[in-house]
Amino acid sequence: MQIIGEKINGTRKRVGQAILDRDVNYIQNLARRQAEAGSTWLDVNAGTQPDREPDDLVWLIDMVQAVTETPLSLDSANPAALAVAIKAVNKTPLINSISGESKRLAEVLPLAAEHGCPVIALAMDDRGIPEDCAARVEVIHQVLAATRAAGVPDKRVYVDALAMTIGTNTESAAIFCDTIRAIHAAYPEVHFTVGLSNISFGLPARSHINRAFLTLALAAGLDCAILDPLDQELRATLLAAELVLGRDNYCLHYVRAYRAGVFDKPAN
Amino acid sequence: MQIIGEKINGTRKRVGQAILDRDVNYIQNLARRQAEAGSTWLDVNAGTQPDREPDDLVWLIDMVQAVTETPLSLDSANPAALAVAIKAVNKTPLINSISGESKRLAEVLPLAAEHGCPVIALAMDDRGIPEDCAARVEVIHQVLAATRAAGVPDKRVYVDALAMTIGTNTESAAIFCDTIRAIHAAYPEVHFTVGLSNISFGLPARSHINRAFLTLALAAGLDCAILDPLDQELRATLLAAELVLGRDNYCLHYVRAYRAGVFDKPAN
Repeated sequence: MQIIGEKINGTRKRVGQAILDRDVNYIQNLARRQAEAGSTWLDVNAGTQPDREPDDLVWLIDMVQAVTETPLSLDSANPAALAVAIKAVNKTPLINSISGESKRLAEVLPLAAEHGCPVIALAMDDRGIPEDCAARVEVIHQVLAATRAAGVPDKRVYVDALAMTIGTNTESAAIFCDTIRAIHAAYPEVHFTVGLSNISFGLPARSHINRAFLTLALAAGLDCAILDPLDQELRATLLAAELVLGRDNYCLHYVRAYRAGVFDKPAN
Repeated sequence: MQIIGEKINGTRKRVGQAILDRDVNYIQNLARRQAEAGSTWLDVNAGTQPDREPDDLVWLIDMVQAVTETPLSLDSANPAALAVAIKAVNKTPLINSISGESKRLAEVLPLAAEHGCPVIALAMDDRGIPEDCAARVEVIHQVLAATRAAGVPDKRVYVDALAMTIGTNTESAAIFCDTIRAIHAAYPEVHFTVGLSNISFGLPARSHINRAFLTLALAAGLDCAILDPLDQELRATLLAAELVLGRDNYCLHYVRAYRAGVFDKPAN
């Protein structure tokens, strides 16, 4: 399971303020803690207006790279910001994201192809996010045709089948899981990621919903997620789900995590 | 989801002592709390030697029925104890359990048939518990042939495909889930139950494993479980899993449980 640490995101109020204030300590603390908690990538999202975004994103990258060697996930829909960001990173970054939207395919996909970056591909196009599984699968087919045509191998593509909140569609998790099962059958080398907490947007007691969804999505083939790596309960769920799914030989990871105190209640 | 409250079980040391001591308050407190927490049945298991078991089981039944109207699950492999217990109950009980073992089919199944009781059917026979899914399915076919021949309709049978600890077999949960999927396809009216916590026997941090397994087993078709209804985290997992599985229209149960404080941290 690969984890994209989600916390350095300027659309979150406290982080946005830290970016405006150039609050180095706040950002580096988030970076260090997420890296130590086992993130595969650290997402960096400046969340600012297009004219400021390139500068803000490069500042974030510089600050984060000064304290950790964990590679970055460059989270932007702005090709200008991504182009300068790719030049600022020390290691090949994940690009977050392309989709079937023609503008992203025309302007972001070539950057991923040129720099050999893995890339998140969202299951949506210029018409928006398809309602049902069949339509979502169809959009993903088209995105994968475009990534292949651009020379990006399937194993560098992380499909995000898009978890919509279950608050507005009872079938939302089923649509997500059915979609990744169908795509996995057709493209065995493609990876699957998700912005995990979207599933519970607008609902109370969200963490329980996120954990149940993570367990079911892992069973369906999810092998990556954008989530809060500092959420200890979520980490425990991830370890337990991989154990129960038969992916932890001799229970080694689980027992090791237990000895390391992962299941202890936080001190608070 | 139907819940069989597991706590009144004489093989647990504290409960066994309460039975020996005829500690009415202790037993009735367990009964009342499990009933209030939403148990569909309350399991009663005297856990004593065969000569004492009929008397102990009837005492348990009398004490429990004095404080709750929740029907009972008569948990015994002893036909003599079950025969007197069935006469002591106010409401039709669940019988826990038969299996493919010839002695249980000969001596316990007729009691269930005669009294119109629902019955738990374990996926094992005189040779023990089959290792793999195919062999387990085969045993269940034979048990269901026997229940049908005895006149017990499928909808009164609760198949327990037997969750063995993942500590000794990494594939244990997969075998369980595959078995109930196969049986559900062949017998759409049969119910599925499980002694939930067996999946984590011998492992540390068991509650996380039990919760991940519950989520996956619900997805596979589990509609009943023997568990601790007082475990608030498990109850939260159950509510969240049913929500994510699309079985909670308009999130009504989930939001209602939230308002009732189910997701609040216990005060200790």
